[in-house]
Amino acid sequence: MFPLPDPMARALAAARDAARAGEVPVGAVILHAGKVIATAANAPRALCDPTAHAEMLAIRAAAATLGSDRLDDCDLWVTLEPCAMCAGAIAHARITRLYYGASDAKGGAVEHGPRFFAQPTCHHRPEIYSGIGEGEAGALLRDFFAARR
Amino acid sequence: MFPLPDPMARALAAARDAARAGEVPVGAVILHAGKVIATAANAPRALCDPTAHAEMLAIRAAAATLGSDRLDDCDLWVTLEPCAMCAGAIAHARITRLYYGASDAKGGAVEHGPRFFAQPTCHHRPEIYSGIGEGEAGALLRDFFAARR
Repeated sequence: MFPLPDPMARALAAARDAARAGEVPVGAVILHAGKVIATAANAPRALCDPTAHAEMLAIRAAAATLGSDRLDDCDLWVTLEPCAMCAGAIAHARITRLYYGASDAKGGAVEHGPRFFAQPTCHHRPEIYSGIGEGEAGALLRDFFAARR
Repeated sequence: MFPLPDPMARALAAARDAARAGEVPVGAVILHAGKVIATAANAPRALCDPTAHAEMLAIRAAAATLGSDRLDDCDLWVTLEPCAMCAGAIAHARITRLYYGASDAKGGAVEHGPRFFAQPTCHHRPEIYSGIGEGEAGALLRDFFAARR
């Protein structure tokens, strides 16, 4: 078995941090010109913020670092298929490439539900790659929800 | 002509503040149990944050005020039809009622594009009312973009 690309390994580590904090285990990483500039774990409960998904926190941190509301030449790696909120933010931020691990038939908005980037009204579509690290990303989520049932 | 409901008048005032700051003029207000707990103007440029739409800032402020990532018994008033990002956040926050002014054929995700709340995968649908204050909300946006052409 080959190791995962470094950004997805970092995103999975952030997802494990989220699980340990009692949050749904999702993690995200943003690279600018190939260098990691933001890493975030899902944290809506800890932050009392329903918008605090890993992708949103990573996008906000990266934008603050770059000093711009446009993340030119940035790639986002996330362990789970983004929801509609996060897909919309990815478009607003003009993310160049989106890599995600597990697909999400319930809450995903890329290949499921609203299929946001396939809508004719979508104003920016990143290149999209999926399935990288999906085994571990999905296992983290299954274990998390199984422990809470 | 009857006056607008107070929350939409406040949201329009926030939209005018956004225009004066050089931001796309959209404003939002959140009421909890009938009392205003958050007012926000669209501010992605000023905040270097592509997620800083008026609705998002209002939701985050209201959640901080209530100390919870669920905005139970809360209504959101916004001058423009929410985009996919904001519609997703409205669902995550469990907003009870959504009132919006102008519809947005280009970026809207309620009655246009992904029609987020009509998707079978949507996990929370607020009651939705539209068109309140749409004349002034639309004029603010038209004037803003006309001045930039």
